[in-house]
Amino acid sequence: MDLTALRTAHPDHWSKATAIRALTLDAVAAAKSGHSGMPMGMADVATVLFEKHLKFDAKAPDWPDRDRFILSAGHGSMLLYSLLHLTGYEDMTLEQVKNFRQWGSITAGHPEYGHAKGIETTTGPLGQGISNAVGFAMAEEILRAQYGKKIVDHHTYVIAGDGCLMEGVSQEAITLAGRHQLSKLIVFWDNNDITIDGPVTLADATDQPQRFKSAGWAVIEIDGHDPDAIDAAITKAKSQGKPTMIACKTHIALGHAAQDTSKGHGALTDADQMAEAKAGYGWTTGPFDVPADIKAAWEAIGARGAGDRKAWEERFASISGNKQALFNRTLAREVPKKLSATVKAFKKQMSESAPKLATRAASEKTLEIINPIMPETVGGSADLTGSNNTKTTDLGVFDTNNRGGRYIYWGIREHGMAAAMNGMALHGGLRPYGGTFMCFTDYARPAMRLAALMKIPTVFVMTHDSIGLGEDGPTHQPVEHLAISRATPNTYVFRPADAVETAESWELALSSTQTPSVLSLTRQGLPTVRTDHKLKNMTAQGAYVLAEAEGKRQVILIASGSEVSVALEARDTLQEAGIGTRVVSMPCMELFAEQDESYRRKILPAGAARIGIEAAMRQGWDRWLLGERGKASKADFVGMDDFGASAPANVLFEKFGITAEAVIERAKALI
Amino acid sequence: MDLTALRTAHPDHWSKATAIRALTLDAVAAAKSGHSGMPMGMADVATVLFEKHLKFDAKAPDWPDRDRFILSAGHGSMLLYSLLHLTGYEDMTLEQVKNFRQWGSITAGHPEYGHAKGIETTTGPLGQGISNAVGFAMAEEILRAQYGKKIVDHHTYVIAGDGCLMEGVSQEAITLAGRHQLSKLIVFWDNNDITIDGPVTLADATDQPQRFKSAGWAVIEIDGHDPDAIDAAITKAKSQGKPTMIACKTHIALGHAAQDTSKGHGALTDADQMAEAKAGYGWTTGPFDVPADIKAAWEAIGARGAGDRKAWEERFASISGNKQALFNRTLAREVPKKLSATVKAFKKQMSESAPKLATRAASEKTLEIINPIMPETVGGSADLTGSNNTKTTDLGVFDTNNRGGRYIYWGIREHGMAAAMNGMALHGGLRPYGGTFMCFTDYARPAMRLAALMKIPTVFVMTHDSIGLGEDGPTHQPVEHLAISRATPNTYVFRPADAVETAESWELALSSTQTPSVLSLTRQGLPTVRTDHKLKNMTAQGAYVLAEAEGKRQVILIASGSEVSVALEARDTLQEAGIGTRVVSMPCMELFAEQDESYRRKILPAGAARIGIEAAMRQGWDRWLLGERGKASKADFVGMDDFGASAPANVLFEKFGITAEAVIERAKALI
Repeated sequence: MDLTALRTAHPDHWSKATAIRALTLDAVAAAKSGHSGMPMGMADVATVLFEKHLKFDAKAPDWPDRDRFILSAGHGSMLLYSLLHLTGYEDMTLEQVKNFRQWGSITAGHPEYGHAKGIETTTGPLGQGISNAVGFAMAEEILRAQYGKKIVDHHTYVIAGDGCLMEGVSQEAITLAGRHQLSKLIVFWDNNDITIDGPVTLADATDQPQRFKSAGWAVIEIDGHDPDAIDAAITKAKSQGKPTMIACKTHIALGHAAQDTSKGHGALTDADQMAEAKAGYGWTTGPFDVPADIKAAWEAIGARGAGDRKAWEERFASISGNKQALFNRTLAREVPKKLSATVKAFKKQMSESAPKLATRAASEKTLEIINPIMPETVGGSADLTGSNNTKTTDLGVFDTNNRGGRYIYWGIREHGMAAAMNGMALHGGLRPYGGTFMCFTDYARPAMRLAALMKIPTVFVMTHDSIGLGEDGPTHQPVEHLAISRATPNTYVFRPADAVETAESWELALSSTQTPSVLSLTRQGLPTVRTDHKLKNMTAQGAYVLAEAEGKRQVILIASGSEVSVALEARDTLQEAGIGTRVVSMPCMELFAEQDESYRRKILPAGAARIGIEAAMRQGWDRWLLGERGKASKADFVGMDDFGASAPANVLFEKFGITAEAVIERAKALI
Repeated sequence: MDLTALRTAHPDHWSKATAIRALTLDAVAAAKSGHSGMPMGMADVATVLFEKHLKFDAKAPDWPDRDRFILSAGHGSMLLYSLLHLTGYEDMTLEQVKNFRQWGSITAGHPEYGHAKGIETTTGPLGQGISNAVGFAMAEEILRAQYGKKIVDHHTYVIAGDGCLMEGVSQEAITLAGRHQLSKLIVFWDNNDITIDGPVTLADATDQPQRFKSAGWAVIEIDGHDPDAIDAAITKAKSQGKPTMIACKTHIALGHAAQDTSKGHGALTDADQMAEAKAGYGWTTGPFDVPADIKAAWEAIGARGAGDRKAWEERFASISGNKQALFNRTLAREVPKKLSATVKAFKKQMSESAPKLATRAASEKTLEIINPIMPETVGGSADLTGSNNTKTTDLGVFDTNNRGGRYIYWGIREHGMAAAMNGMALHGGLRPYGGTFMCFTDYARPAMRLAALMKIPTVFVMTHDSIGLGEDGPTHQPVEHLAISRATPNTYVFRPADAVETAESWELALSSTQTPSVLSLTRQGLPTVRTDHKLKNMTAQGAYVLAEAEGKRQVILIASGSEVSVALEARDTLQEAGIGTRVVSMPCMELFAEQDESYRRKILPAGAARIGIEAAMRQGWDRWLLGERGKASKADFVGMDDFGASAPANVLFEKFGITAEAVIERAKALI
């Protein structure tokens, strides 16, 4: 590259972009690790975007109507940190930049949501950012329909690399964006021809522009180092009426000895080469030293949106008080006051009528009463609407001609759905939930983990949660998936036993502000076990005594979901045989673990033998069966220890020995 | 549809295709569940494929040079079962077809590999079959390069639906196939415009032909009910020099009242509608009754390849004895005799030289000695070759001009890699292994589960297996992934402590015939703990005493991988303080669980306090810490209970308290 030509053609632009490159080199060198090449390659695109297009105010980073900027290629985190520091985000001090990748800094190796203002989502696992962005753009459409263009009217910009585009989830994302003509979504492809293993051509020969066009996108191809071309492309992208991919031909590690090589992807820390690169840029100050005039120019960019922001605040003040309150409540992730009473009334009705109902059907009934009072819920399913029972009467279907629709037909895209739901939750103002078969947790896993890591309350509705799924067979029958979600930090796994616990689980999931929820729901019908109405949300403590032992307590049966009624049936027989048997319903292990020790000991006292009952693998149960820190009991587990099989559900429960008879036999053997 | 016109235009074809439709309707009706519409829609394509193109011999279903037929749209399993029954596969009796979806039958709801001959892979989770197929086609290329065209020369045919094509993994698969110009891969797209939720257009508007072209495929668009067009398309597809997608415009549930509707996707069991459909087909026999002449015509198709097969056997007999032996050995998944001695020699060398080495580097060293003696290994990485240490000197790189290359640059496609590796393992003759960061287990999960379910020994090389990854931060640091793989049935999770255990783990993984392996390997250097050379593979028993307590045994430290050296360090101090401390290395919980109780009790005797040490979540450990069935001990665990953070690795171990000091403190508190 002829850097001199670039410098002389656009000197002001050049100095600003160079500040990003210099800070990147310095921070990576200080950390002795990181990814230098991407920020150096995309500095020009980012500079033009921030200078001329991105609607933001560095002093009001949470302004709800700001444009969103998502660095899907999260390894290039120094690009984002440089931009935030240079434009004057208050928390992104020079000290933080100097502490790149160090313990306690807000400048983690990859951008972590919640660490610093301006990080709209956690990225790093490739393909996630661009998929989150689809949710951001959908959220913008839905909220614009709800509040009008004067309150909600912003763009979502994404920088994605070859890694993001090779990941399968990106296909789910771009086809969703294309289907829904999300015209305010603009993706910059960092087309630098390099991946970690070498040239992109080693592994891929995709015609990306043609691919995006096949998904219904507009495509613009430019030189990613030409500020005029970048500016013109963004201007054009905003008026295409569909999502736009701007293919930016760039040089990774521009101006460095490692330019255009896979070495340039990583940490460029050689002092001589750094000096050489900076000399080539015409950058003469020392490490982390941005000349005052250049910093001032950047800060002016950071302040550019202040007027827009103030005007928005005035417009916001002009809408009705109710609308303002709703906007603020939903943005704060607060539930409406009447949620509690609504759920209580529903519980009472269920306890009294005691229906035999699959919990997926109970979930639908619950949503039928919740969705009308929570306009922030957005439901959906990955092409299993009728099976997941996620669609309620009043939601309306999100579509190009119905932007206010709150139900999304996600198609057969579990991963894209989960990632886009995260994007909606991150955008704010909406509470997304989406369904698939629990077994396909596997497909959605990368995004489910990120919801937990980001501390956002996405709700995953996982129906057909055991061999109770029946004939579809072991490919569709989860056995390890409860353990998988329970092993994941900051995740609530709710496995309700009946309609009452289902409603309680929904109340907790929608009240959660920082923890995603997995609702584990049955295909098959279950009897109501909570026939004694209680105002209190019993699920909130994770586990509770559903049926007390009569006489001397010899056995505690601990069960979740569909196996709670199995436990109750076993208890009847055991009590008849004079064996005092307590039944503990345990709809949420994580909430139980959060209780203090005295409550936990009250529910699971020492002395009695314990049997866990769950149509799933034992992993995760031993803590409750064997006790914590050496307070172990005699214990056994009735569940699965292998994959399921294809047969009617009742046959499977019989053949795999998850029956009251089996529980009774094991209980007798233990005591 | 004008069925009469179809019938009269091609009466012989029609009667054969109708046999599939009739058997499908009957089997689904008998099971009262299943998916009728897809087999009814794709019967014409399948009939022409089997009658005129597919190279197979129903009486020799395992003939290694057969064409592979993969039903990626696995819910249409009755299409496959009908074809196998009609063409005369001996195990696919009419009785089995009548027992569709019942306990103990080989006709599961979705095709299960191993249940019946002719089921080349387990499908149902969408997108897997088409992705397996890429591995099948790569395997064919590699083996053709190894053995020549007269021994290996076959096609891989796939039927995929809209579901398969919407799943992101299909993008990874088709871009891989396009990049490598896998010209013997032919995919039929069942283009019926219908998914479960309704018309495809509800959720997708992708121009699939354009999408496939962007990936480097040839595309042919036909009427999927016109046998001449189908025949011509397949003939053309074989000569395109690249993979071909044949877009087949079809009618789901052809001829049934539910034709062209989402209802047609499911179980069509209404007796009147069935009768009406059969009448429209001109099908007059009763349930499960295929007229003898039609069955005979199908059986002739099943026997069509017998001559080819015999000719192949003669050709095979003509190659060298060594080549034959190699072919047969690898097909039988047997390791070469010299593997054991080679590994032993390597272990001796490591024990003597006692290097400080990351286990990922130890893994590379092991592969350097194994790959030259096992020509069936195929290595690869999802764009982390230098980090996963998966590439050895002699492998060569698989490419269009080097079909014998045994290293695959998979690109940033963890899921596609895992699914394609499964395809290679299923094809037979190759032993695939592939690497990524352990955290990206999440991306590969759906295929990893299927390897376990199918009982195939795919090897997943998961490096950077803890916070030891360091600065890249929590998005790249696994904490729950050991638990995830351990919760999965039929999966060996090896977490070796040093180079010796790494070599032992590789020997076990490559000797496994029915169980996939996860190798959990460190980024960071580890000391050699097995300095005392033993011929025996100590990892084979899952856990063993690495250092015995001196004096009275008060504490047992149980550790895996990078924490074994932490345990040894803690033991030194505890012994100095007079606390008898045993250290158990536990590289594989699953193999330990397979040992008899007396061995398990010998390694973990009652009495002493136990501390588990692993830089991961506790879930899965309690069985070993608290004992089984009530034989609990005082216990504690030193590991992670939340996500990691971004900082240098040594800082993280210190901050998260996974140190010898922490172990010592906990041990003293327990006793």
